Amino acid sequence: MQHFLSTADWTQEQLDGLLRLAADLKQDPIQDRLRGKSIALLFLNPSMRTRTSFDLGMQQLGGIAIVLQPGKDAWGVEFKSGVVMDADAEEHVAEVAGVLSRYCDLIGIRAFPLFQDWAEDRNDPVIRALAKHASVPIINMETIVHPCQELALMMTLREKLGEVRNRKFVLTWTWHPRPLNTAVANSALLIASKFGMDVTLLCPEDAYRLDSRFESAARDFTDQAGGSFQVTHDIEAAYSDADVVYAKSWGALPFYGRPDEEWELRRKYRHFIVDEKKMALTNKGIFSHCLPLRRNVKATDGVMDSDYCVAMDEAENRLHVQKAVMLNLLGL
Amino acid sequence: MQHFLSTADWTQEQLDGLLRLAADLKQDPIQDRLRGKSIALLFLNPSMRTRTSFDLGMQQLGGIAIVLQPGKDAWGVEFKSGVVMDADAEEHVAEVAGVLSRYCDLIGIRAFPLFQDWAEDRNDPVIRALAKHASVPIINMETIVHPCQELALMMTLREKLGEVRNRKFVLTWTWHPRPLNTAVANSALLIASKFGMDVTLLCPEDAYRLDSRFESAARDFTDQAGGSFQVTHDIEAAYSDADVVYAKSWGALPFYGRPDEEWELRRKYRHFIVDEKKMALTNKGIFSHCLPLRRNVKATDGVMDSDYCVAMDEAENRLHVQKAVMLNLLGL
Amino acid sequence: MQHFLSTADWTQEQLDGLLRLAADLKQDPIQDRLRGKSIALLFLNPSMRTRTSFDLGMQQLGGIAIVLQPGKDAWGVEFKSGVVMDADAEEHVAEVAGVLSRYCDLIGIRAFPLFQDWAEDRNDPVIRALAKHASVPIINMETIVHPCQELALMMTLREKLGEVRNRKFVLTWTWHPRPLNTAVANSALLIASKFGMDVTLLCPEDAYRLDSRFESAARDFTDQAGGSFQVTHDIEAAYSDADVVYAKSWGALPFYGRPDEEWELRRKYRHFIVDEKKMALTNKGIFSHCLPLRRNVKATDGVMDSDYCVAMDEAENRLHVQKAVMLNLLGL
Repeated sequence: MQHFLSTADWTQEQLDGLLRLAADLKQDPIQDRLRGKSIALLFLNPSMRTRTSFDLGMQQLGGIAIVLQPGKDAWGVEFKSGVVMDADAEEHVAEVAGVLSRYCDLIGIRAFPLFQDWAEDRNDPVIRALAKHASVPIINMETIVHPCQELALMMTLREKLGEVRNRKFVLTWTWHPRPLNTAVANSALLIASKFGMDVTLLCPEDAYRLDSRFESAARDFTDQAGGSFQVTHDIEAAYSDADVVYAKSWGALPFYGRPDEEWELRRKYRHFIVDEKKMALTNKGIFSHCLPLRRNVKATDGVMDSDYCVAMDEAENRLHVQKAVMLNLLGL
Repeated sequence: MQHFLSTADWTQEQLDGLLRLAADLKQDPIQDRLRGKSIALLFLNPSMRTRTSFDLGMQQLGGIAIVLQPGKDAWGVEFKSGVVMDADAEEHVAEVAGVLSRYCDLIGIRAFPLFQDWAEDRNDPVIRALAKHASVPIINMETIVHPCQELALMMTLREKLGEVRNRKFVLTWTWHPRPLNTAVANSALLIASKFGMDVTLLCPEDAYRLDSRFESAARDFTDQAGGSFQVTHDIEAAYSDADVVYAKSWGALPFYGRPDEEWELRRKYRHFIVDEKKMALTNKGIFSHCLPLRRNVKATDGVMDSDYCVAMDEAENRLHVQKAVMLNLLGL
Repeated sequence: MQHFLSTADWTQEQLDGLLRLAADLKQDPIQDRLRGKSIALLFLNPSMRTRTSFDLGMQQLGGIAIVLQPGKDAWGVEFKSGVVMDADAEEHVAEVAGVLSRYCDLIGIRAFPLFQDWAEDRNDPVIRALAKHASVPIINMETIVHPCQELALMMTLREKLGEVRNRKFVLTWTWHPRPLNTAVANSALLIASKFGMDVTLLCPEDAYRLDSRFESAARDFTDQAGGSFQVTHDIEAAYSDADVVYAKSWGALPFYGRPDEEWELRRKYRHFIVDEKKMALTNKGIFSHCLPLRRNVKATDGVMDSDYCVAMDEAENRLHVQKAVMLNLLGL
C-alpha cells in the first residue's frame, strides 16, 4: 500500500505514469471504474478547487465522496500520541484513521501547518499521524506540500510547452497581506526539479528562502534529472528569458509564528507583484498560480486576464490528476 | 447559452415549457438524463429547501451536485472588478466562475443583497458578475429575485386553480421582526403578471412599495397578458374575492440599510399577519408562502394547518421545476 | 409506517431481524436496492461516524443522502407547537418535516438534549415533534437514546461472544471534563437487557444513576429475556468476571443544566478511567466505547490499543446496521 503524501516519495517515472493516466481521463472523464469505492475528505482548512475536484472526480468515476470538517461539523481531533486528552479535542487520530479506514477506501486530508513552531510543522505531523494509523491510502490535499497541485502544474506545463527539461522555471515570491503557508512553493520546487527544469527561486531576501529540506531536494532532483537550481533576489535577472513564471506568497520562516515582526519585513516588498512589465522580460513565458489569488496584490488584472496566464488550465487539471491518483492508489 | 437569472428575461412561452416539463418530471422523477453532468451550488446564505431540492434533483437525474459555502468552507469571494484585493476576500469571481465552469456543467448561486445600498443591490451585481465570467449556464437560487420559487408557485397555482388568467392574486406584506429581502415579493409580481393574473400588491404604506423596476414590469406584463395590476393599503379590499393570497415580509426600501429607523415604521403593522378571519373574506382562496415562515408572526397556525394552505405543495414543486430548469439549460 | 426512534418500541425479534440483515449487508455491501431513494440527514450537533456511515451507507445502496445542519447552513427550527415565533428560529418543525417528507423517503435527525431541563428533555421532544409532522419514517441519529449505536454494539457482541444471554455486561461511567449526554448509556442498558444479558451499571454514586425510565426498562427487559440488572458503585465488584466492559461518560441528572455544581461531584472521580489493571479483573472481557473517546481520560492508550478493544468493530458495524434500518423502514 502506498500513500500520496509527497511527490518526494515517488519516482519521476511513477509521476509520469500518473500524468499519462490524467491525460487519458481528461479525454474520457465519465467512467465507472470506482463504482462502490469511497473517499473520506477531511478539511481542516477552507477549500474550493480541492473540495470540488476531489468530490466531483470521485463521483465522475462512479464512486462516493464524504466531506468532513473536523472541529466544525465533525469532532475536533488530537494528532499527538500519548496525550492525556483534557483539551478541546474529543477524538484521537488513531480512532479517526481507524474508523474511516473501515468505512472508506481512501482518505484525503487538508491540514495546513499551525504557524506556531516550524521545527515541528516541517515534519508534517498531522498527515504523518493519519497515515500511521490508517489502513487505507492517504492523499495529501495540502499540508506543508501540495502534491496534487504539483501534478496539475506539471500537466499544464507539458500541455503548453511540450518537453519541459531545461526550460527556465521561475518561482517568484509575491506580496500578500499575511504570511501564508509555504506548501505550494515547496511543491513547485519539488516538481519542477524532478522533471529537470532550470529552476530559479526569486524572493526578496534570504529570510524568504524556503526550508533547506526543499531547497536541497530541488538541488538533488535537478542534479539527477539534468536541470539546475539557483536562488536570486534580483527580479529582473529572474524574469529574464523565463519560460514559466509561477507565483506564490509565503511567510518568512525565521519569523514563523510571529506575524507582527514578519510584517516589518514584508511591508517593503509590495513591488514583487507579477505585472505585465515584468512578464515582458520573459521568453514569451507563461504565468501560473495555484489559486486563490488576490488580484492586483499578487498579480495584476492584466496578467490574470492575459493569454499567457494558464492558472485556469492548472485548476482544471487538478480534477484529472486527482482522478489518476485515486485510481493508481486503488490499483484500478 | 442562456442563464436563468430572472424570469423577466424569459418569455411566457418558455416559462410555460418549463412548467410542462416539470409536470412530466413530477410523474417520473428518477431518470438518467443528466448522468455525468454536474452542478456547483454556491450558497452565500442559509438554505433548506433550495439546497435539498437542487442537490436531490440533480442526483435523481443521475448527475452530481457539489455544495459550496464561500466565506465558510470555501474562500471568500470579491465580486467587483478592478479592485486591489487587500480586504478579506482571497479570491475573485473571475477565477471562481472560470474554475467552476471548467469543472461543472451548471452553477447555481444564492446571494442575498447586502442590505447596505439598494441603488447598488438593485442591479443584482453578484450574480451578474458570476454570469459575466462563467462559460456555463448560471441559475439564480435567490438574489433580489427568486425565479425558481416563481416557477414552483405558478406550477402550484395551475395544479389548484387550472387556468390562472384573471384570477385575483394578492401579494400581501406581512409582519416579521426584521426587514427581509424583497426577492420573493418581486418575483411574485413578475410571475403572476406574466401569466395574466389580476395582481394586487397589499402593503401597509407607500414605504413598503416594491422597487419601481418590478412594479413597472408587473404593469407591463399584465398589459401584455390581459391581467391587471394595482397597489393598495386596504387589507379588507385586498382580501375580498381573492383567489390566491401569497404572503411575504420585506423591508421598506426607503430605509434600506437602516433597520433601526425602519423598525419605527414596522412595529405598527403586526396586524398584517395572515389569519383565518382575513382568509374568510376571500373567494375560497388558497394561501401560500415560499417558506421558511414564522408561525403566528407571518401567518397563524390556523392558516398554515388549513386545507387551503398550499405552501407544502409549492415547496415540493421546487424540486420538479428546478429539474426542468437544469434539463432545459443543458438542452437535454 | 414505523419510525426508528428507540429500540424500546421494537421487539427483540424485530431487532434480531435487523441484525441478521446487517450481517448480510456486511458480506455484500454494494447494492442497488435503494436506487432513487433518498434520506435527509439533519444534524443539530457534530458527528463523524454517524454522518459518514449514513451518507456512505445510503450511497452504497444506490440512494441519495442530503446532509443539513439547521441553524448553520439551513434555517434554525422551532420544535414547540403553538408558539409565536418571535425568537431566532425562522422555521417550524411542521414545515421542515412536511417539506422533507415531500422530497425524501427517510429523515434522520441528531438532536442532543439542551442540558437545561431534564424533565422536558427526557421526553425527547425534538424527534417526537419531527415524527409527529413527518409522513416518512424518522431515524434517531442520537437524541436521549442512540438506537443505531445499540444495534452496532449488539452486532459486535455477537460477533465476538456468540450467544450473549447471561453474559456479564458492565456499563461503566467514566471521567470526562464536561457533563455529557446520557444517550449512549441509556441505550446500552436498553439493548443489553433486551438481549438477556446480566447487566451491571457501575457509577460513582447515586447522582450518576440513569433516568428511572431507562433503569426500569432494563429491569423489565432482563426479566422478560432471562437476564438480570443491578447497580453498583464498587469498581472491583463490577469489573470482576465481566464479559463486556462498555464505557461512557455522562452528567449527573440531579445537577442537569448546572455544570459548575456538577463539577464539584465529578472532579472526585477521575479514577473511573478504564485501565489495564481494571480490565485484568474481567473474565478476559472485551472493551468497547461508542467513540469519540478522549484517550487517557476515559480509557488509557493501553486499553484502546489492546486486542480486547472492539470499539473499531462497533464503529464499522454502524454502517451495516444503519443500512439494515433504512432497508427495513422502506420495506425493501
